[in-house]
Amino acid sequence: MHAYRTHTCGQLKAANVGETIRLSGWIHRKRDHGGVLFVDLRDHYGITQIVADEDSPALSVLDSLRVESVVTIDGEVKARSESTKNPNLPTGEIEVYARGITVQSRAEELPLPVAGEQEYPEEIRLRNRFLDLRRDKVHSNIVLRSKVISSIRQRMIDKGFTEFQTPILGASSPEGARDYLVPARLHPGRFYALPQAPQMFKQLLMVAGFDRYFQIAPCFRDEDLRADRSPEFYQLDFEMSYVTQEDVFQTIEPVLAGVFEEFANGKTVTPAGEFPRIPYAESMLKYGSDKPDLRNPLIISDVTNHFEKSGFGLFEKIVGSGGKVRVIPAPNTADKSRKFFDDMNNWARGEGFAGLGYVTRKGGEFGGPIAKNHGPERMEELYNELGLGPDDGLFFAAGKEKDAAKLAGAARTRTAQELGLIEEGCFKFCWIVDFPMFEYDEELKKVDFSHNPFSMPQGELEALETKDPLDILAWQYDIVCNGYELSSGAIRNHRPDIMFKAFEIAGYSREEVEANFSGMINAFKYGAPPHGGSAPGIDRIVMLLADEPNIREVIAFPMNQRAQDLMMGAPSVVSPKQLRELSIRTVEPPKAAEAEKARVDNIGD
Amino acid sequence: MHAYRTHTCGQLKAANVGETIRLSGWIHRKRDHGGVLFVDLRDHYGITQIVADEDSPALSVLDSLRVESVVTIDGEVKARSESTKNPNLPTGEIEVYARGITVQSRAEELPLPVAGEQEYPEEIRLRNRFLDLRRDKVHSNIVLRSKVISSIRQRMIDKGFTEFQTPILGASSPEGARDYLVPARLHPGRFYALPQAPQMFKQLLMVAGFDRYFQIAPCFRDEDLRADRSPEFYQLDFEMSYVTQEDVFQTIEPVLAGVFEEFANGKTVTPAGEFPRIPYAESMLKYGSDKPDLRNPLIISDVTNHFEKSGFGLFEKIVGSGGKVRVIPAPNTADKSRKFFDDMNNWARGEGFAGLGYVTRKGGEFGGPIAKNHGPERMEELYNELGLGPDDGLFFAAGKEKDAAKLAGAARTRTAQELGLIEEGCFKFCWIVDFPMFEYDEELKKVDFSHNPFSMPQGELEALETKDPLDILAWQYDIVCNGYELSSGAIRNHRPDIMFKAFEIAGYSREEVEANFSGMINAFKYGAPPHGGSAPGIDRIVMLLADEPNIREVIAFPMNQRAQDLMMGAPSVVSPKQLRELSIRTVEPPKAAEAEKARVDNIGD
Repeated sequence: MHAYRTHTCGQLKAANVGETIRLSGWIHRKRDHGGVLFVDLRDHYGITQIVADEDSPALSVLDSLRVESVVTIDGEVKARSESTKNPNLPTGEIEVYARGITVQSRAEELPLPVAGEQEYPEEIRLRNRFLDLRRDKVHSNIVLRSKVISSIRQRMIDKGFTEFQTPILGASSPEGARDYLVPARLHPGRFYALPQAPQMFKQLLMVAGFDRYFQIAPCFRDEDLRADRSPEFYQLDFEMSYVTQEDVFQTIEPVLAGVFEEFANGKTVTPAGEFPRIPYAESMLKYGSDKPDLRNPLIISDVTNHFEKSGFGLFEKIVGSGGKVRVIPAPNTADKSRKFFDDMNNWARGEGFAGLGYVTRKGGEFGGPIAKNHGPERMEELYNELGLGPDDGLFFAAGKEKDAAKLAGAARTRTAQELGLIEEGCFKFCWIVDFPMFEYDEELKKVDFSHNPFSMPQGELEALETKDPLDILAWQYDIVCNGYELSSGAIRNHRPDIMFKAFEIAGYSREEVEANFSGMINAFKYGAPPHGGSAPGIDRIVMLLADEPNIREVIAFPMNQRAQDLMMGAPSVVSPKQLRELSIRTVEPPKAAEAEKARVDNIGD
Repeated sequence: MHAYRTHTCGQLKAANVGETIRLSGWIHRKRDHGGVLFVDLRDHYGITQIVADEDSPALSVLDSLRVESVVTIDGEVKARSESTKNPNLPTGEIEVYARGITVQSRAEELPLPVAGEQEYPEEIRLRNRFLDLRRDKVHSNIVLRSKVISSIRQRMIDKGFTEFQTPILGASSPEGARDYLVPARLHPGRFYALPQAPQMFKQLLMVAGFDRYFQIAPCFRDEDLRADRSPEFYQLDFEMSYVTQEDVFQTIEPVLAGVFEEFANGKTVTPAGEFPRIPYAESMLKYGSDKPDLRNPLIISDVTNHFEKSGFGLFEKIVGSGGKVRVIPAPNTADKSRKFFDDMNNWARGEGFAGLGYVTRKGGEFGGPIAKNHGPERMEELYNELGLGPDDGLFFAAGKEKDAAKLAGAARTRTAQELGLIEEGCFKFCWIVDFPMFEYDEELKKVDFSHNPFSMPQGELEALETKDPLDILAWQYDIVCNGYELSSGAIRNHRPDIMFKAFEIAGYSREEVEANFSGMINAFKYGAPPHGGSAPGIDRIVMLLADEPNIREVIAFPMNQRAQDLMMGAPSVVSPKQLRELSIRTVEPPKAAEAEKARVDNIGD
């Protein structure tokens, strides 16, 4: 017989009744029924009920052990009586009568219970993650993560992608977020950087002729942490050669839809081939966001033209100075009190907006100051244009276009939440496309890149040479699911001539571009294929599928929000010898001095 | 028609003749046949011959382009004449008549040719890795690497393993090689360390109840580089709960044998279930190494007892003082000159050994000073005992046991190489088992751990309490293929009581153990399962399968031997702001001062 087990704790069925078996696992629960001890023995695969009666040599041993001790049980499989069968447990038809026991590991008193579903403070959970990970939900989350990644991988390979490992010790880049740095022992004064993403390397792989690259890539950003951010995170990094934007969509939609369908647990998923493509400008108008949650049925409309000459002076003034008026319907709110609308306005002010106007309507009667000043006829006209009914309210977001869009987007979400309109049980995907290549930077009073300078402009060199820069769109796209941006992607600019021209428009000289991006520009000089890709966030995908609001619930060993591993004690103080070898020295952060400087600077403002 | 291609460059066959198609790729080679240009167009998938004749608008464009430029060709598929068919090329039945061309990317003059198989200096190759990776052999190596990893992964999943991602930003450990450190911005004066291996985390996952863990794990060691070492490397890290050493072997042999068989390219592979298990002591005796190359048929024998009273005074003296005499047969060397044997002796001296003795034999006649002094009868007796023949020579390695074993091992390899005895076309695996738990440290005059303090001693607590420490073996094992150690592994010590006892034998107090290994000891206090695993090196596996002597040939973007990425410029100088944020400062390495100190210290010795 095997030293530890003939079966796992999830395996025994009625067919095994009468067999002499051996199980090993953790004591999940103990129940003392007066001279008979019932033990739920747990391993990775399941739970089996162990019975130790008065005759069993295991009784006194089990009695003496704390839960979470590890034991090996020799026993006989017996059928449970009809009344004690447990149909919810895969092993619920049987129980094991313990004939012998070996203690593999005695548990001390636990800092955190494993059985049960109590909430526990995150710090205690992370400090004892080896226990926390035994708990049902987080155990399942981590297994789900593994299955999701494995499924994604297989789907990518099936689509002809080759997985690569790109360097983790890389070069620091002037772009993007803050790098984690690694002092280079052999090169005093120099540093490696951990990759924020393998962007350069995946493009170089395309230049090297590999056609379809992917990687479940570890990425690192030394930024302040939030619920959906971790210092290290993983993305499905992929890139393809000789493709248009449409090719990228057609390739990756089945991968994403497929993996979501596989693990959706009954929720519906936007089918591959049917992901809506929403131009950025349309998204900002209709959803007030470039990350629209399409489970929300509310659509924002622009009604600026209705208020060019309005009795409602505030809107007239805003419109007169080039601002916008956007509206969010609040359907079937005839029975909502005035307080409901006022609370929405107060919420908007609390979020830092000037305020959220509203019109109420009950049986066709308008209410509220906007309706009063604007006049019921003109309001009716507006309602008809929007196709709203006699019991629908309406929220108003007015201001500079950006501000109006932002408030409208937030109010759209809030309204739908308050009215319970967000569709449940579904994953709704869309692409946001046609991002502007450039934007006007109000502060610097100049044209600048609006998103990624390395995306290919639509119309390529000709567009750059002939069009108003602010009218030029980029082959750039985001993929969004239920209001979460899963990734940004683009068809890349693979031509140095187009790159120099694009940077010129944004005010950078050829010399500056060559100095800052020499690696990429140099590689493009020796035959670069057109290429593009994206990098959906793995952790976010798993968060969505596990229905968890926090990224740390889907990472086996996450850091806390102060970027510490409390269990292993990272980061830690290291020896002077280690620092000497790296030719670095630690310095006290000059807090006092900095605070003083900041104070003086502020006085100068 | 698609913007870039209707087919890849490896796809068109006779069945496509007559079709109008579009291809994109790199100009691999151009041949001008007087008014007709033949171009080999290359992509990731293959090569297609393009023909541009005088009528083709593509002729002048192709003529003006350098090789490695990227073009899109519109053309017609034509059958090649019988005489020009190329059976070595998958597309060799056809050629494409170019009707149109679009230049996607013009190549400048290349720093490194892509076509052909010229050797090029590594520095130029790495600086232009995006071109180097287009070359046939290295391109195939990287694709092979990807396929090997994918196959390993699938085999592990099929065996019920779950893949995890463990943290890359971890804690520095006092054990092992030198860590790469990462300054922690939020914790001035503290550092993360990149993992040398996910050893602690995989054991914690077992403690957390995950049963079968694996990871294609990136590992980092800041050590001096060699042909088979890279600062970052990957291992098939795995761990299993409730297993014996034999379970580990039976689980992983099919994975390794399977992946080697899949990619062996005609070479034979030790079948799963038949990997020899060679005790450490036996391996040191028979092969003079714990990494035996079993393709080498030569077996070392100990003949110490023959020389207890020998006419050959040197050996008698060595044996008298506790030393050993080991012999390596040199079969069928009757026709070898005296020089062959003397050269071997000189080689041994050049390697720092005292010298390699020898006996020659020709038609039964012994030659050389050892035979002469020892006497032909006694030499014949020794030969009979070893089963050697009348034309077999014999090399002698004598000295302290360790030295004799080491020399014998090196001489065994050299002899087999010189005599052409190493079997080709095979991958021969074995396990080295039964490593000693402790050894006597001659310098410190104390018993110490001989390998890994965290392995379970055979016989567990009882052995530690009752046996001579130097007789205790560990459940520790290496896997070796063709003389390369692929990995070390062990059944772990999961019991704090046994761990404290083992450390006590090596002279460490309970307090020291608790202070240094608190994370692990703490986790073991709350129910730890018996567990074990190993971590075969992925890069070495791919090196063996690709038949490459250098790890950098199987890594897409390797660093050079000075740990630099010449293409991307890593490591690099970073901004003072970055260092300030990390609360560190770089310091000039005090070379002069250190050298002076070293000099003074040496005088003191």
